[in-house]
Amino acid sequence: MLDIRNNHLIIDDVDTVELSEQFGTPLYVTDKTKLKDNFQAYRSAFPKADIYYAAKANWDLTILKILAEEGAGADVFSEGELYIATLAKIQTDKILFNGNSKTDSEIEFAIKSGVKISVDSLDELNTISKAAVKNDCEANIAFRINPDVSPDTHPKISTGLKTSKFGILESEVICAYKKACDLPNVNPIGIHCHIGSQILDISVYEEATLKMMDIAQKVSSFVELKFIDLGGGLGINYKKEEKIPTPKDLADIILPIFEEKTELIGISPKLILEPGRSIVGDTTILLSRVNTVKKAYKNFVGIDAGFNLLMRPVMYDSYHEVMVANKADEKVEDTYTIAGPICESGDIIGSDRKLPKIEKGDLIAVLDTGAYGFSMSSQYNGRPRCAEVVVCKGKANLVRDKETFEDLVAKFN
Amino acid sequence: MLDIRNNHLIIDDVDTVELSEQFGTPLYVTDKTKLKDNFQAYRSAFPKADIYYAAKANWDLTILKILAEEGAGADVFSEGELYIATLAKIQTDKILFNGNSKTDSEIEFAIKSGVKISVDSLDELNTISKAAVKNDCEANIAFRINPDVSPDTHPKISTGLKTSKFGILESEVICAYKKACDLPNVNPIGIHCHIGSQILDISVYEEATLKMMDIAQKVSSFVELKFIDLGGGLGINYKKEEKIPTPKDLADIILPIFEEKTELIGISPKLILEPGRSIVGDTTILLSRVNTVKKAYKNFVGIDAGFNLLMRPVMYDSYHEVMVANKADEKVEDTYTIAGPICESGDIIGSDRKLPKIEKGDLIAVLDTGAYGFSMSSQYNGRPRCAEVVVCKGKANLVRDKETFEDLVAKFN
Repeated sequence: MLDIRNNHLIIDDVDTVELSEQFGTPLYVTDKTKLKDNFQAYRSAFPKADIYYAAKANWDLTILKILAEEGAGADVFSEGELYIATLAKIQTDKILFNGNSKTDSEIEFAIKSGVKISVDSLDELNTISKAAVKNDCEANIAFRINPDVSPDTHPKISTGLKTSKFGILESEVICAYKKACDLPNVNPIGIHCHIGSQILDISVYEEATLKMMDIAQKVSSFVELKFIDLGGGLGINYKKEEKIPTPKDLADIILPIFEEKTELIGISPKLILEPGRSIVGDTTILLSRVNTVKKAYKNFVGIDAGFNLLMRPVMYDSYHEVMVANKADEKVEDTYTIAGPICESGDIIGSDRKLPKIEKGDLIAVLDTGAYGFSMSSQYNGRPRCAEVVVCKGKANLVRDKETFEDLVAKFN
Repeated sequence: MLDIRNNHLIIDDVDTVELSEQFGTPLYVTDKTKLKDNFQAYRSAFPKADIYYAAKANWDLTILKILAEEGAGADVFSEGELYIATLAKIQTDKILFNGNSKTDSEIEFAIKSGVKISVDSLDELNTISKAAVKNDCEANIAFRINPDVSPDTHPKISTGLKTSKFGILESEVICAYKKACDLPNVNPIGIHCHIGSQILDISVYEEATLKMMDIAQKVSSFVELKFIDLGGGLGINYKKEEKIPTPKDLADIILPIFEEKTELIGISPKLILEPGRSIVGDTTILLSRVNTVKKAYKNFVGIDAGFNLLMRPVMYDSYHEVMVANKADEKVEDTYTIAGPICESGDIIGSDRKLPKIEKGDLIAVLDTGAYGFSMSSQYNGRPRCAEVVVCKGKANLVRDKETFEDLVAKFN
């Protein structure tokens, strides 16, 4: 939890100014207590469901380990994420291997690992069957169904539109499951969809759940459905609005439909959800030092973190709250534009923010950077990626070292 | 140079299909001959100028080594790029340290290395002077001037607009140079601007050069200008248009003004140019295997490279030519949308491309990926970054190893 003490921003009882002095900047700081609370909010809201954390939001090994201890499963999108999830000791029977374009080697690795596979196309189904036969294994699969719903979010992350690259169309679902029943070494045991990310108007989940239950009814006439995976996508409160939906609000939409329909159909599949952002998004802040302040067209504040570490503002025009961590209690004095050090005009972390007076050496905290922050980070402009600290009730642990200049060229022969 | 032989795409006399079999996919392949030719085109067009390769376009160590052998200098934008440029044996007296938000440690490193520094603000000038005094060094500097010109390019990379975060305004230039003359251990010896990237209508360089020469005239009344750096920004032929400007065309605009004005003013500064994209952009292709083909809303072709390796299409809506490298001589049969494996709807490498019939296992070549490809790459979705091969007159050398899954978690404690 964030707090203010002696004019400093405090995270889970640890002073961010001290963190910046001890570990340097830029620095990702993750609040373990908040992470566990976020996961448990899903557990309470969906007591009978399995919660598969969407590793793409942040495939940080430490975060996966913490969630594994809380009982999370994982939705993984590559062999690498499966590798990390396994390393974090997430149980393989609680992992779904997802992906619209899996390599043959990824498919073989997934089958041999015994995880469930979400199948994106009939072409892929054939590949999976052949790989399962070759390896003398059974592949437990679900099709990823494109439910053709339109959540109100950024088009780049709206994944359940008819036009998106993901999944099979509703019109092909029955044919696909029949094909799966006919092919050797493939067991269709679930259905899967995912409609998008950072969704705040959750009424769209009603439409998606109804569509999926309708499909479940049709499919379960010839397939024993062991799970129905409704994906993730719940948004978080980037703009600090008064009220945004919680896991409980989501449950209030999904569960009545899910329970009524499964009873009606006479099936008892496990409900699976795949939250990512809403588990990790608000657990983490990015601390960054002010290198320079100048008055040009605007008041530009140059900090030491840019879109190398946080891609969301330039990529999706996303808003992240910004604080002056060493002046957390001071009154607003001017309007500032917070610029990263990357050689592109688009590298702006926050435009026209009303903040206390900012000077060289001040510490900027960019809030809600736990999702799609580190996981999308790069070494652009030859910048080693920064360290990460996990804080918990007043204690701080360095969980990831900063990369070095030597690391930048380590793979060159 | 790209060629077609036996239905296969050939790069500098090397068969891309064989490369994909020998080194796996995805794979960056760089044509050394083309790289040297591109650099020499600048040398011939600007025989008296210094060509500082803009390392941000691709800070690949091998590419920097090749360019160093050709006599290139470097424009670097971070301590990391300076480290790599030095490792590549680019002479320090041919390096400009650029940046809108430099850390104190970067400034000290730059001063101690003896490279020239492009100063972004008066605030930074003070920092540089203090650091130079502290280290008992002299800092040779130029101010980065924001010339307020509007090239016709993507706003995220249009760096010379009045509204951009870069440089000092024209109205402050004289005052800034006077300040620099007054401060200890700082030697103003040049002026610098950079107006943008991927510029195809090069008439804008006339305005920029005239503005800079006007500034040079004013500044040289009290400063001995040893160099005038007009930046880079020349675009490349992504869309395979009939005619696009060459370094020679750029020289035909810049040199007459530069020569006339320097003579008029009575100064003899070195002209510096900072091309990046136009040196490396068309030297490199990205080879990627087709994992799956499906007919959904469109004909989607799932390949094994996405915006983890090539950010430009999703970030700037950029166009890259796509070929089926193992069917390079076959006739167009259908319209395909080439999708990467990343879990975002925006991960589309090319939309609605007319190509020969594509099947699982085919090899896709994405052209012109030498600039802002590898340099912006990430490990998003837990994907290790791919290897790179340099080809030269029929021979292929692995210059960068593929990352491993272990590399993904190497920094975690």
